[in-house]
Amino acid sequence: MQTDPLQVRKKSICSVPIQDFVRRVEDFHGAAAPGVVLGGYMVDLAYRHLPATSSLFDALSETRTCLPDAIQLLTPCTIGNGWLRVLDLGRFALSLYDKYSGDGIRVFLDPAKLDTFMKIKTWFFKLRPKQEQDLDVLLGEIHTAASQVCGVMPVRLKPGFLARRHRGGFRICPGCRESYPAADGDSCLACSGETPYR
Amino acid sequence: MQTDPLQVRKKSICSVPIQDFVRRVEDFHGAAAPGVVLGGYMVDLAYRHLPATSSLFDALSETRTCLPDAIQLLTPCTIGNGWLRVLDLGRFALSLYDKYSGDGIRVFLDPAKLDTFMKIKTWFFKLRPKQEQDLDVLLGEIHTAASQVCGVMPVRLKPGFLARRHRGGFRICPGCRESYPAADGDSCLACSGETPYR
Repeated sequence: MQTDPLQVRKKSICSVPIQDFVRRVEDFHGAAAPGVVLGGYMVDLAYRHLPATSSLFDALSETRTCLPDAIQLLTPCTIGNGWLRVLDLGRFALSLYDKYSGDGIRVFLDPAKLDTFMKIKTWFFKLRPKQEQDLDVLLGEIHTAASQVCGVMPVRLKPGFLARRHRGGFRICPGCRESYPAADGDSCLACSGETPYR
Repeated sequence: MQTDPLQVRKKSICSVPIQDFVRRVEDFHGAAAPGVVLGGYMVDLAYRHLPATSSLFDALSETRTCLPDAIQLLTPCTIGNGWLRVLDLGRFALSLYDKYSGDGIRVFLDPAKLDTFMKIKTWFFKLRPKQEQDLDVLLGEIHTAASQVCGVMPVRLKPGFLARRHRGGFRICPGCRESYPAADGDSCLACSGETPYR
């Protein structure tokens, strides 16, 4: 990572020192991927715009690439606890929202703001092959840019999206003899044709 | 957590001491949820059955509840790095598989093996309200049972499931002015009607 004055002043993401966050990303994600590091600044921006009263929030990632890991590392929301949902709309954007009202904050990478950050633009739009890009220079620019390349807007989730699926009990599948949610029908979804296995 | 002789002998999950794993679960997931702790033993069982030659593997969780977090904490596979996929089939099962050949190992909770572990059975099938179950006793039984309540089988993923989506470049959406995968069409999926926002 390159150092620069801006980075030194901007000391933390969600109260986590930047270097600690980058180490967490390396441990969890496997490498200090630009998308997760930039995602950290996006989560931080969203947090700073959340109403002070909003304590119980859920998270939505509009892409399955990188961003979900920044959310999982910096918020209480994970895939397994159900507070993070991934809806792969292909947009590099996330929302944090009140789990009851659906009111929240959406942060997105704004292409209109990338012209002064050409390393980020080149990486994000894959304008050059990965191996021709200098990762350290790119990460340095991400730390310099931080949330300057992002937009932020209030959002309200649709009610249908807030509703939790109630499983209505479990059954043993006559096909695989495993347990499945009774609401799925007479057999589990895998035995009903959705199996990923040969 | 209750201590018992079996637990003391079974000292680690995927080379991580049990107490350390439980602490990681508490930090990441928010609590030592039974499903994540049991999931840890399932990941461990899958690992022990992987061929020694299998170094680059992907993971699949057949439920979005709890199990994905055990996988993310114990393997290199996360949602954000793309090595973990969640296919919510409603079965408490996971697979680790070679990302090229699709050959792998599937571990599942086997209902037929729960009759000697009544606390786990009561929790898993929600036979009693959560508040009537003793979490410490349940966790103790999970540590005692470990992978005894699981089945293991070889699997081969369908080729279509292995293929990665190639995005074929990006476009700016005429609706939201954000970047999206060109393969998604003339506008991004959100502007094409799949938005979760009001």
